[in-house]
Formats: sequence, C-alpha cells, structure tokens
Amino acid sequence: MTSRTEWLRGTLLATSLAFVATGPVLADSAPTNGKAAEFKVTDFLLDNGMEVVVIPDHRAPIVTHMVWYKIGSADEPPGKSGIAHFFEHLMFKATAHHAAGEFDRAVSDIGGSNNAFTSYDYTAFHETVAPSALELMMSFEADRMRNLILTDDVIKTERDVILEERRSRIDNNPQAVLDEEVDATLWQNQPYRIPVIGWMQEMEQLNRVDATAFYNKYYRPNNVVLIVAGDVEPDTVKTLAEKTYGKVARGPDLPPRVRPVEPEQNTRRTVTLTDARVSVPSFSTQWVVPSYHTAKPGEAEALDLLAEILGGGNRSRLYQALVVKQGIASSAGAYFQGTMLDDTNFTVYGAPRGDAKLADVEAAVDAEVARIASDGVTPDELEKAKDRYVRSMIFARDKQDSMANIYGSTLATGGNVQDVEQWPDRIRKVTADEVKAVAARYLVLARSTSGYLLPQQQAGN
Amino acid sequence: MTSRTEWLRGTLLATSLAFVATGPVLADSAPTNGKAAEFKVTDFLLDNGMEVVVIPDHRAPIVTHMVWYKIGSADEPPGKSGIAHFFEHLMFKATAHHAAGEFDRAVSDIGGSNNAFTSYDYTAFHETVAPSALELMMSFEADRMRNLILTDDVIKTERDVILEERRSRIDNNPQAVLDEEVDATLWQNQPYRIPVIGWMQEMEQLNRVDATAFYNKYYRPNNVVLIVAGDVEPDTVKTLAEKTYGKVARGPDLPPRVRPVEPEQNTRRTVTLTDARVSVPSFSTQWVVPSYHTAKPGEAEALDLLAEILGGGNRSRLYQALVVKQGIASSAGAYFQGTMLDDTNFTVYGAPRGDAKLADVEAAVDAEVARIASDGVTPDELEKAKDRYVRSMIFARDKQDSMANIYGSTLATGGNVQDVEQWPDRIRKVTADEVKAVAARYLVLARSTSGYLLPQQQAGN
Repeated sequence: MTSRTEWLRGTLLATSLAFVATGPVLADSAPTNGKAAEFKVTDFLLDNGMEVVVIPDHRAPIVTHMVWYKIGSADEPPGKSGIAHFFEHLMFKATAHHAAGEFDRAVSDIGGSNNAFTSYDYTAFHETVAPSALELMMSFEADRMRNLILTDDVIKTERDVILEERRSRIDNNPQAVLDEEVDATLWQNQPYRIPVIGWMQEMEQLNRVDATAFYNKYYRPNNVVLIVAGDVEPDTVKTLAEKTYGKVARGPDLPPRVRPVEPEQNTRRTVTLTDARVSVPSFSTQWVVPSYHTAKPGEAEALDLLAEILGGGNRSRLYQALVVKQGIASSAGAYFQGTMLDDTNFTVYGAPRGDAKLADVEAAVDAEVARIASDGVTPDELEKAKDRYVRSMIFARDKQDSMANIYGSTLATGGNVQDVEQWPDRIRKVTADEVKAVAARYLVLARSTSGYLLPQQQAGN
Repeated sequence: MTSRTEWLRGTLLATSLAFVATGPVLADSAPTNGKAAEFKVTDFLLDNGMEVVVIPDHRAPIVTHMVWYKIGSADEPPGKSGIAHFFEHLMFKATAHHAAGEFDRAVSDIGGSNNAFTSYDYTAFHETVAPSALELMMSFEADRMRNLILTDDVIKTERDVILEERRSRIDNNPQAVLDEEVDATLWQNQPYRIPVIGWMQEMEQLNRVDATAFYNKYYRPNNVVLIVAGDVEPDTVKTLAEKTYGKVARGPDLPPRVRPVEPEQNTRRTVTLTDARVSVPSFSTQWVVPSYHTAKPGEAEALDLLAEILGGGNRSRLYQALVVKQGIASSAGAYFQGTMLDDTNFTVYGAPRGDAKLADVEAAVDAEVARIASDGVTPDELEKAKDRYVRSMIFARDKQDSMANIYGSTLATGGNVQDVEQWPDRIRKVTADEVKAVAARYLVLARSTSGYLLPQQQAGN
C-alpha cells in the first residue's frame, strides 16, 4: 500500500507549497470581484456534526472528494506510535458491506483515482472521479467510517505491511533515519518528535484492542471535514452528503486537541549520522517557530515570506549566494511548515558542490541567516517575494486538488474557511520590519538543532 | 520546601552509590553466616496489598521508616509533567485529621528527622525516630495516604512553591538547564526524557482535578513498599502496620508499569549551552544501557564494574590517566545508574585544568573508552574493583538509611528482596570478558549523546 502513503515531510511540504501556490485565487474571487460567484466556497454542518466544504470548479466534469479526519500521529496515545498511519491502511480492508479492494476497484472501473495520506495532525482519504460517481464515493466513505471489520487476522496482515514499509522507507534510508532523530532532538516534548510512521518497537505491538479503541474514538462524522471540489453545486453536495454521511450516527464529543507543548530551547543541538551509503554530505538546521494556528497575528505570514526570501527558490538569498555566486553548494534553501496545529519548524539546508567542504556551506548559510536577522530584508525583495507567490498561484488555479488540500489542511489544523480566504490579504500586509523581527527572534544559532549526514570517510568531521 | 526535595540526578546518584556501598553486608549476613540472624530481612504483605520490608539493626535505639510509592515522574500522564514531584509537596499539607505542618512538628518534637524525595520511578517519604515513635509515624503516613484535603487554594499555594523551586534550581543554573536538554536528547521516546521537576509551562497548568485524579490512582496501600530499618522486631512492625496502614482500603488494581521504550539510536548527538556564568568548561557523554530491571543476566553487574574501573574514583582509569598522569583534567569519571525500572544511562565526564582545552580532555576520555571497549579490563583491575566495593560496604554498614534506600529503590523498580541479597554474589561472578563485552556493545561514540557547558568566550567552540 506504499502508493497510498505520503506521510512524513513529503506530504507536509507538498501541502505547504500548495497553500502558498494558490491563495490569491481566493483573493481574486472575493465577493466584490466580478468572477466571485464562480469561486464562492460554501461551508456547512450536517446534523451529526460533520463539516462540509464545497469549492465550485466548473472547468471540467471532475470532482475531488476528500475526507479529512482530524486525527494524526501527534494525537496518538503514548506507546502507540504509528496507529494513525496504520488506520490509513486498515481503512482499505473489508467492511460489513464491502470486501477488501472493492472500493479501489469501483474507483478504477470508472476511470477515477484515489489515495490517502497521514500526517501529524490529520489523516485524509480522497478520490477524483466524474461528478456522477460522487454519491458512490460518499457511500463507500460513509461505510468505512464505521463498518470496518477489525479482526486479529486483518490486524496482523496489515501490521506486517506497515512494518515492511518502515524498513524500506526509513530504516534503509540514511536520510530518513537521520531526519527521525533530528525531529526527536528538535522536539523534546511536543508529539511532533514522534515519527508519523511510528517507532518500530511500538508498531510491532499494535493490536486489535488498540485499533478498535482508536477507530471508535476518532472515526466519527463529528471528527471529519469533508472537502468536495469540482463540477458540482453546493445543494447537490448537501443532498448527497445527507443521504450518505448523514446516516452515520454522531460519536461522543472529542476532548480539545490540547497536546504537550515544547519548553523553551536553551541549547545548540546537533545530530550526526555517518553512513557508507552516503556519497555527498549535507546538513539542515531547524528552529521551533509558531504555526499559523499558534502564531500571533502576522507572525506566520512573516515567516512564510522570510522562508521565501531567504531560501524559497532560485531567486532566494541562499541560492544566489551559495549556488550561483560562491559556487560552493549544489543546493541551499529554507522552508517553513506553517499549516500545523501546534508550533512548527523553520529549516535551512545545504550541500556542498565539487571540492567545497560541508563546513564552508554551513558557515555560508549561517552567515546569510545572521545577515537577514540583523539587517532585515529590502522593500524590493519583499515585494518581489509577494509577487512570486502571486505568479505561482496563477498556475495553481488549474489544480483542483490543491484547492481541496488547502481547505482540508487548514480546517484540520484549527483554521476556518475565512482564514483561507483572507490569507492573501494578510500576506500582502506584511512589512519588512515584521520579516526582520521574526528572523531576529527565532533564527538564533545558539538555540537551533542541526542534522548532518556524512559519508563514511568524513566520520572524523 | 526545598529541604525536602532531592529529585534529579542528586538523588539517583546518591541511591546508586549507596547501593554499591552496602551490598556485601548482605552477603556477609547470609543464613550460613554466624551473624546472620541479626541481618535477616523480613518481607510480607498486608491484606490490602501493601508490601512491608523489615531490616533489623539493633546497634542503636533508632528506626528508619520509609514509605515508597511506586509512582514517579516517568509514570505521569502526557502534559502533566511535575505532578509526581508536586505530590511530594502536597503530602505535607493538611489532611482530614491533621493540620498542615503538624506531622513535621511531631517529628521534630521528639528529636527525629524527616524528608521526602521524588525520582523517575518512585516518590518516598521517610522519618528517622526512636522506636517508640514508630506507631505515630505510621499513623501520620497512613492518614496522609488517603486523607489529604486538596483545595484550589492548597494547589495554588504549593504550585507557586514548585514553580519557584524550578526557577531557582533549574532555570538559574546553567548546568541544570543543560542537563535537562541533554536528557531530552538522549531519551527520544522513553519518559526519562522529561525532567522530574516538570516543564515550566506544564507545571503552571497543574490543577486540583489533575491532582485529585493522581492521588486517587496512585496513593493507595497496594502501590506502596514500606521499609522499616532499625531497632525493632518484624512482629512488632507487622502488628503496628496492621493497626495503622492495615485500616486503609486497598485501591483499584493499577495497570502494569509499561512505558514507551527507546528506539535504537543511530546517531551521534550533541547539546551545547554557552553561558556567561560558566567559568570552566565541561562535558559529559551518555549512552542508553540496560538497567538492573531490563538487563540480561549479568549485564547490569558488568556495567557497574565497568563504571567503577573506567571512572569510579581516584583509582579509576579516567582519573589516573587524565588527572594524575596527563594532568589535563580537574575531574574525569564515569557512572552507571543501574537501579531504574526501564533502560538507563551510562555516563563519562570531564573538565580541563589550567591551560588544557576541553577538546583535549574529551579526546582523552574518548580514547580511554575506546581502549576499554577494544582491549577489555585486566583480571587484576577487576578483582581490585570488586574489592573496592567490599571495602566501601563495610563503612556503609553503619548507615541504616542506606540499607532502607537499597531495598526501597530496588523494590520500587521491579526488583525483590532476593535480588538485593544475591547482588554481591552476582557481582563477584562477573568476568573480565563480560565487562569488555558491555563496553564494546554499548559505549559506541557514533551512537552517543554529549553535553557541553561552555563559558561565553568559547562560544565559537
């Protein structure tokens, strides 16, 4: 089931970039705009507490149907790491009404596609099909929300699959092994320190009792955001949703998603993995920063623009300085994972090119970070960074699933429809002083965590 | 209430050293020995599940009375760090039958002493008094086991005390701040990563609801080991215990103490704190190793002897090489915290003297570690290390509270009376090959965690 899983950094990054890439579409579609009606997003609740968001997109006869469960790896009970991702797999097994594989076949028989992914804050299942198949998709999803048959045999078989997935995707990949231990060093209390796929020794112990308790607690309509994007009217979605999901009984109220938070970091931390399979060394440095959900007004937007200016692409300071001008790096950049329920991370990274040493690349990255924290950004840089967002969003308008991802990930991490719609305006309001302020406040080397991936011969590094 | 608290490394170290220091007393007192009866330890259960251990010691008319609750910081619910230590404080507040401070006054009125401490695996309360006061002590302890009055006002007042305790003992002490973040870097999943005193932001939120739930769950006779050491007969202890503790109703059965365990470490990790208040730099390197409770037979005993030979005192390799011969270090040593419920840590440390550099001291420590792992120890070194244990134990025989500590900490971390009694024999059986094997298996630099405490001027180190 590897093809269905996009957990870990990949997913978060993809979601984050999609978010950046499409915001202004929504700004252009504000009600005062002539084209507004075409993009008007509708949001309503079913009687059982399930939230439904409809994003009209009538350019082609397709619809993207995404079920977002507000349950991710950071919500797992202690010692049960991996169970959220385990459910991403289990949800494709037999239910009281359908054999295992029947949903997949139904999608592919009509030429559709489907997928699922798990992250720290959510687990999502989605299908892209013709509008005429929407009711069938809803019916299948509503069925597996409550009717999974969780036998010891199903658990054992699928547990073997996730264990093998861990071996092949993490344990055989030095970068992935390093990333896990860097995350668990950066985060010393907040559950983002635990890998989404789980720790091997805990995955091995996951059992039917754990799975049944987890399913009964979290797989409930009142813990879901349904996103339907595409060639369909809100009224139709509502009628179909009531006919399918509406029949699923509301579950007990869930407690607020209040998780252990991170203590103040006072130290500089490093994590080094030396491995014979590594040919080119590389490093990353991470800081704990607020997310869109935890930040004071404007801070997360400033962090987004800081990441863009410092290391968001080929025009960024890091790329221009290290790759283009100094020619010492094969890669160098920065990113900010803003769409998270709790505090998140801001990361810079680089790898040397040719005869350059990793230490030289790291020093050059540190220098650029120090410079932006002390001197800030220019108004010109800031405007261009905002413009780059706008241009990339124009391309993203073509991506129906990006729109669904933006709304789904925002609503599953404590945000609402208005947050998404007002985001472009908030980005436009960020000042150069605000960008400098977040750089100076958060990007302090003495309170950072670096990961180093080294070839065997550099073991003495 | 600072005088009552010995949580953190201090306690663990003290307990560990006491353990090392007194074992052979028990070997000498085996039933085949003429003096046996004098030291015969008695162990029994009350009807309500409370375990009682009596250690006779008739040399002086005093008795040490220790109540060990099998609840420590590593058992705390997520987000509630510090609540175990909080209870160490709350237990001195008013009960339904005694005003706050009444117990303390009763002890000091009769010329006794009392204290309490919290660690990862247990919370203990103890009094040393004349035997005639034993019943009174039991009566006070049995009372506060169930009859504490936990009002919002009591909680708030005492919470302010522990917050101030954290500020003064941790946050104002660079070594303590560093130690916390080293622990949380060494331990990425197991709860020993969380400080016993708690994370500030979680301590601030501790409330009456949390405290009441914690008290009702863990402060029960079936979660207690009572140790009575001193000038008293087992029958007397039993009669008095039944008369006092025996009247406390058994609580619901507690679940097994199964906690998240540590994943395999694949990386070398460092944590550095640079602070203007530091005058002499220092470092420590730690490894995850098995404890007496988690080790295969003989491994923990071998680790104890490894610590003794490598860095247990002035005769140890580290001290002799770095302090005496090379003269580069003001201190250098090693220790192993064996008496823990889960896997524990093995630590080496050092600090430079005069013009020596910290990096030189660290390299010399690393070299001694590498040498002992590759070449092992000599039979002569091993015998002398065992002899040093024996000699130190002779001195420890005078310490009634050390005996009580050994039994209490062992029984609160999954051991039993027999484990304590047979420990000296198991130590004597350790071979040089076994010591080499644990050094080679566990003390691998590429899978270690180091902490560095640096003065401000060495910030560029």
